[in-house]
Amino acid sequence: MASNSFGNIFRITTWGESHGRAIGVVIDGCPAGIPISEEEINHDLARRSPGNSPYTSPRKEKDLGEIMSGVFEGKTTGTPISIVIWNQDQDSSKYDSIKNLYRPGHASYTYLQKYGAFDYRGGGRASARETAGRVAAGAVARKFLSTLGVTVAAWLEKVGPHTAAVSTENLAEVEKKTYESPVYCPDESTAEKMMELIGKVQDEGDSIGGLVRAVAVNLPAGLGDPVYEKLSANLSKAMISIPGTKGIEFGTGFAVSQMTAYENNDIFVNKNGTVETETNHAGGILGGISTGMPLELAVAFKPPSSIMKPMKTLDVHGTDQTFRLQEGSRHDPCIAVRGVTVVEAMMAITIADALLMNRSSKV
Amino acid sequence: MASNSFGNIFRITTWGESHGRAIGVVIDGCPAGIPISEEEINHDLARRSPGNSPYTSPRKEKDLGEIMSGVFEGKTTGTPISIVIWNQDQDSSKYDSIKNLYRPGHASYTYLQKYGAFDYRGGGRASARETAGRVAAGAVARKFLSTLGVTVAAWLEKVGPHTAAVSTENLAEVEKKTYESPVYCPDESTAEKMMELIGKVQDEGDSIGGLVRAVAVNLPAGLGDPVYEKLSANLSKAMISIPGTKGIEFGTGFAVSQMTAYENNDIFVNKNGTVETETNHAGGILGGISTGMPLELAVAFKPPSSIMKPMKTLDVHGTDQTFRLQEGSRHDPCIAVRGVTVVEAMMAITIADALLMNRSSKV
Amino acid sequence: MASNSFGNIFRITTWGESHGRAIGVVIDGCPAGIPISEEEINHDLARRSPGNSPYTSPRKEKDLGEIMSGVFEGKTTGTPISIVIWNQDQDSSKYDSIKNLYRPGHASYTYLQKYGAFDYRGGGRASARETAGRVAAGAVARKFLSTLGVTVAAWLEKVGPHTAAVSTENLAEVEKKTYESPVYCPDESTAEKMMELIGKVQDEGDSIGGLVRAVAVNLPAGLGDPVYEKLSANLSKAMISIPGTKGIEFGTGFAVSQMTAYENNDIFVNKNGTVETETNHAGGILGGISTGMPLELAVAFKPPSSIMKPMKTLDVHGTDQTFRLQEGSRHDPCIAVRGVTVVEAMMAITIADALLMNRSSKV
Amino acid sequence: MASNSFGNIFRITTWGESHGRAIGVVIDGCPAGIPISEEEINHDLARRSPGNSPYTSPRKEKDLGEIMSGVFEGKTTGTPISIVIWNQDQDSSKYDSIKNLYRPGHASYTYLQKYGAFDYRGGGRASARETAGRVAAGAVARKFLSTLGVTVAAWLEKVGPHTAAVSTENLAEVEKKTYESPVYCPDESTAEKMMELIGKVQDEGDSIGGLVRAVAVNLPAGLGDPVYEKLSANLSKAMISIPGTKGIEFGTGFAVSQMTAYENNDIFVNKNGTVETETNHAGGILGGISTGMPLELAVAFKPPSSIMKPMKTLDVHGTDQTFRLQEGSRHDPCIAVRGVTVVEAMMAITIADALLMNRSSKV
Repeated sequence: MASNSFGNIFRITTWGESHGRAIGVVIDGCPAGIPISEEEINHDLARRSPGNSPYTSPRKEKDLGEIMSGVFEGKTTGTPISIVIWNQDQDSSKYDSIKNLYRPGHASYTYLQKYGAFDYRGGGRASARETAGRVAAGAVARKFLSTLGVTVAAWLEKVGPHTAAVSTENLAEVEKKTYESPVYCPDESTAEKMMELIGKVQDEGDSIGGLVRAVAVNLPAGLGDPVYEKLSANLSKAMISIPGTKGIEFGTGFAVSQMTAYENNDIFVNKNGTVETETNHAGGILGGISTGMPLELAVAFKPPSSIMKPMKTLDVHGTDQTFRLQEGSRHDPCIAVRGVTVVEAMMAITIADALLMNRSSKV
Repeated sequence: MASNSFGNIFRITTWGESHGRAIGVVIDGCPAGIPISEEEINHDLARRSPGNSPYTSPRKEKDLGEIMSGVFEGKTTGTPISIVIWNQDQDSSKYDSIKNLYRPGHASYTYLQKYGAFDYRGGGRASARETAGRVAAGAVARKFLSTLGVTVAAWLEKVGPHTAAVSTENLAEVEKKTYESPVYCPDESTAEKMMELIGKVQDEGDSIGGLVRAVAVNLPAGLGDPVYEKLSANLSKAMISIPGTKGIEFGTGFAVSQMTAYENNDIFVNKNGTVETETNHAGGILGGISTGMPLELAVAFKPPSSIMKPMKTLDVHGTDQTFRLQEGSRHDPCIAVRGVTVVEAMMAITIADALLMNRSSKV
Repeated sequence: MASNSFGNIFRITTWGESHGRAIGVVIDGCPAGIPISEEEINHDLARRSPGNSPYTSPRKEKDLGEIMSGVFEGKTTGTPISIVIWNQDQDSSKYDSIKNLYRPGHASYTYLQKYGAFDYRGGGRASARETAGRVAAGAVARKFLSTLGVTVAAWLEKVGPHTAAVSTENLAEVEKKTYESPVYCPDESTAEKMMELIGKVQDEGDSIGGLVRAVAVNLPAGLGDPVYEKLSANLSKAMISIPGTKGIEFGTGFAVSQMTAYENNDIFVNKNGTVETETNHAGGILGGISTGMPLELAVAFKPPSSIMKPMKTLDVHGTDQTFRLQEGSRHDPCIAVRGVTVVEAMMAITIADALLMNRSSKV
Repeated sequence: MASNSFGNIFRITTWGESHGRAIGVVIDGCPAGIPISEEEINHDLARRSPGNSPYTSPRKEKDLGEIMSGVFEGKTTGTPISIVIWNQDQDSSKYDSIKNLYRPGHASYTYLQKYGAFDYRGGGRASARETAGRVAAGAVARKFLSTLGVTVAAWLEKVGPHTAAVSTENLAEVEKKTYESPVYCPDESTAEKMMELIGKVQDEGDSIGGLVRAVAVNLPAGLGDPVYEKLSANLSKAMISIPGTKGIEFGTGFAVSQMTAYENNDIFVNKNGTVETETNHAGGILGGISTGMPLELAVAFKPPSSIMKPMKTLDVHGTDQTFRLQEGSRHDPCIAVRGVTVVEAMMAITIADALLMNRSSKV
């Protein structure tokens, strides 16, 4: 159970609604001795923040995480790290007029069915705001990974027909270019086309989906536990737990349904004493366990559901109604943009957990 | 942890290697009072069995599950249901010649890195044989679901360029046709083309990937727990834990990256007092919680890695070697065929768990 | 893992150190629809607060819990309830002089061995202050239990040779008298003797142990899951996780080692159609499952370790040192007094969890 | 949930009823590389077996565990170790006459309330027979502990007024003497008196309770995770999950309620560079974490409930009935005797788990 927690050893618990006093995360199981500061956490939170680019929600909110516990004299202590992020822009009066509507594509109907009530203010717990807690925890996980030389990077790979071409030779460079781009796409010319398309869709009062790609390098071989705690299985759960995701694939992914083994098998080769594979169709995972090759995955995000264009819907009484976002409402035209940071965070958290789990594999 | 277990309340633990004495599953958390027999379990196991069709491994083994505990006077008692399936065809001498090889596409290398040793006989724990335990547990889950009117069905949707056209209006009919087809594809004409292609690939000593689609109907709205125990997140973990899977998508899936919200949002409509949606791009899930519309997902299986065609590889000493399956070895030309039954089982198990978890959602 | 969490469905995660910014608790899995207010939480927190009686630590701190999430329009929403309690009196300068000492009976040495460092300020995470989060969560659990008519009460039963005589016929009356007593003992004359003894021990610069008894009534029969989630097993874990506890017993407890079955067996009787037992040596639990009779247990608390009387010890360099509390330090002369409220809270949390788990016992 | 599983990393799942085909255990999370054989497991199982001494149940059954998986070429592989123990003496016809009775002190009534039905044959899942799976798993845990020099031993300490005097200087010697004694008490003269008392009680058609003491030595300091995964909290859950237990205490235990801190605190001393304590009232645990001193606990077992002496009870219809064991029935006169082996096993399992958990405490 524990439906607001993720991870086995490195385990996060997020809490908070879009329009409550605050949101936050408790990180349990983080090893002692990792240097971490609020600045590092806020660096990552800033990347996820709304209002950070014209292609994200204009919600004017500077997300600042406060470390409440678990860090002493600049280092993690092994005890729970509690991070609180205050909600500043929480006027919920504008939701009064739509409080009884099932917003199309939203979780209002399903929450009502589940709990007998729902928090109509800005999506409540289903709000993308919940992901700030993940990003804060991801900053800690990334710091832990960095002590082992493991690096994680994600970017916006595709919007509409526009697909970025990205070399992952130098992942630090990819990360730099990604966050210089307003749409978090390191391929500048594709980014231009994405921005044009997103802008056009936004002008029409609509929104659009997108694809995020993520890569992790320098993982040791051997991470991931057979059979249900496969690294790939846990990454899938991690990614599909992010609001708005509709699919995930590893390495060559869905294209394998049209390939033969002779095409798809990655040949093992001896590179100066290190076992590598010539290709990496497997995306760095065999039998659910890391091979040491780059870990590669892609995540599909749907177009964010709340738009200016009027759409038919029902209210809680089953009566036909029309829903459209009010002018000035804060919503993203392409949730995949900010999704980049969240995918990155969840990947770091999942790998951190796998690293710790792996410590008990041998006597 | 508990890396060989899956589920929160309805929880399975599988054990056993391809070439040990037996394999099995323990089902914990199954409610008391469900009528279940060995016949029902063996009915599902027979569908998964190798040798069941020319398009699966010719391993001659009749998988028979024995219920060791948890069933009394024909009904579940609420205590653990232990099912043991004996390994009959377990001659492992033929693996002697390849015991030191890293088989391309296999988990031998990653297991060795993780555990310092690996069971070279037929894939050990990474063998598809492990999935028999899942199917046995799936039979129990399906029986539980049937008491609530929930039905699950899966089929082979795509191999190479051939995509089945299947109407899900009558899921019982789909199930019937699926298991009448040697490749578990209910669309007969497409099935013919698939068989032709699989046969051709097999003749070349190669294997091929495939796509499995699964649907569940009559789910109540409200299943799935925010935020990390989303129904979609758990289904993703369930499916990507199956050997050979490389991707999963829900409803419209990866295609959403090219869609706008106006196209993608499913409109709520009042059908004689019941809330439904006009379309079902969401695949029956909003905010990770079931809407009551059909739950739809697709899973990509890679081409099974062990083939007759010789491929370069390394041995454990890092020396170049060649690997090819020996004549008469038992391996599937398209693992997605038998994957149908496993996808079905994991879907049933995940939904059964969500149903039980949902019992504590309200006071 | 998740070592700062307790419970399966109704699950608490506490965080925070004695001298950090704040402490808190996240309650996950609480059903939707329970009316709860900060006042109710603070009512219970006040009972646990230091400075509440001359027989507890004089730390001047009014513990006020703020509900950050999970409650909307006065009721639980089914999403995580985050409660933050600020640390007001957190001057840690007075710990500078003892920062390198292994305080006798404290966890400083064991934390150092485990984590390579320890938070020397007031016990860090091992501080009894952590229990405030449990009490806040316990208030929510008690409210949930009250919707089902289940009542929990605890009291100080024994200090030194003085044992309280308490009738549990009217548990509301017991609760009232307990919290009217400065030592949380409802038997006034025994309470007088306890106070006298505690005062005498305190005057000598020493502290003393105590025994807390707890009872829950109106539990339905059938709570607790065989075999490792027995109600008694989980209550044992719950109680022995409280700082300073050294033992727990149920019903007749340790005395059974001198009894025969003929003496100890509780005879089932039919009381107007209800199955009861004539006696209750079992303490309301058979086979780990509640019988419906009053649930009874007792918990032993050690004398709090930090005292004014000088004691020999070592510092982190292995050098002989002397430790004694500084004048004006805030410490309890008998931790069992405040332990009453914590035992009560953990009992309520454990029963709430068992109630929810039990919802999936039958089809 | 997973109510038939215990442990976080080293995790056991037991299954099976007293009168089903078999019982068994699956051990997940055992590190790879531990040498283990069926002989070693059966060595421990023999100690627990009924019929092993005149002071245990005369059930004639040689418990032999078969390793079904997880061991390859004599060593653990890191995958689940499944051990099956067949039920040989499973004639359940003799239970027909009592199938509708609530047996006094038994779980029949509570199971019926929980599950709506109960397996009346020999206690079903609540039977002490379930503990054979624990003992088999304990043998594996003990083998793992032995690679680290950690030793566990338990013995019958008290029956009626007779208390054994045992020095724990040489734990191997204690173990040897314990299992030479028919009542598993290493103090021969006390053992004589215990046997006399048990025999007398048995002659009267009655049974008697007992106290088991357990010690583990050579534990590293630092085991056990604050705050809910304290070593003491998990040991408490482990022990109170054993059928028939009514209490547990650590070190000085319940006696601390009459002690002052000056008496109870264990003074840290430097023994040639090693930190030890002069006394060990704490039982080797401070703040829930091991100190490196001997871990000491005691567990109270009730008198086994089924006796020859007739006792009043009810049947499932609420009608007054009389219950007594039939002549020739197999039941223990003092369950604490066989409890020794089970306590030992659960202690080893809990420590093994804590050792593995501790591997992720530091960066």
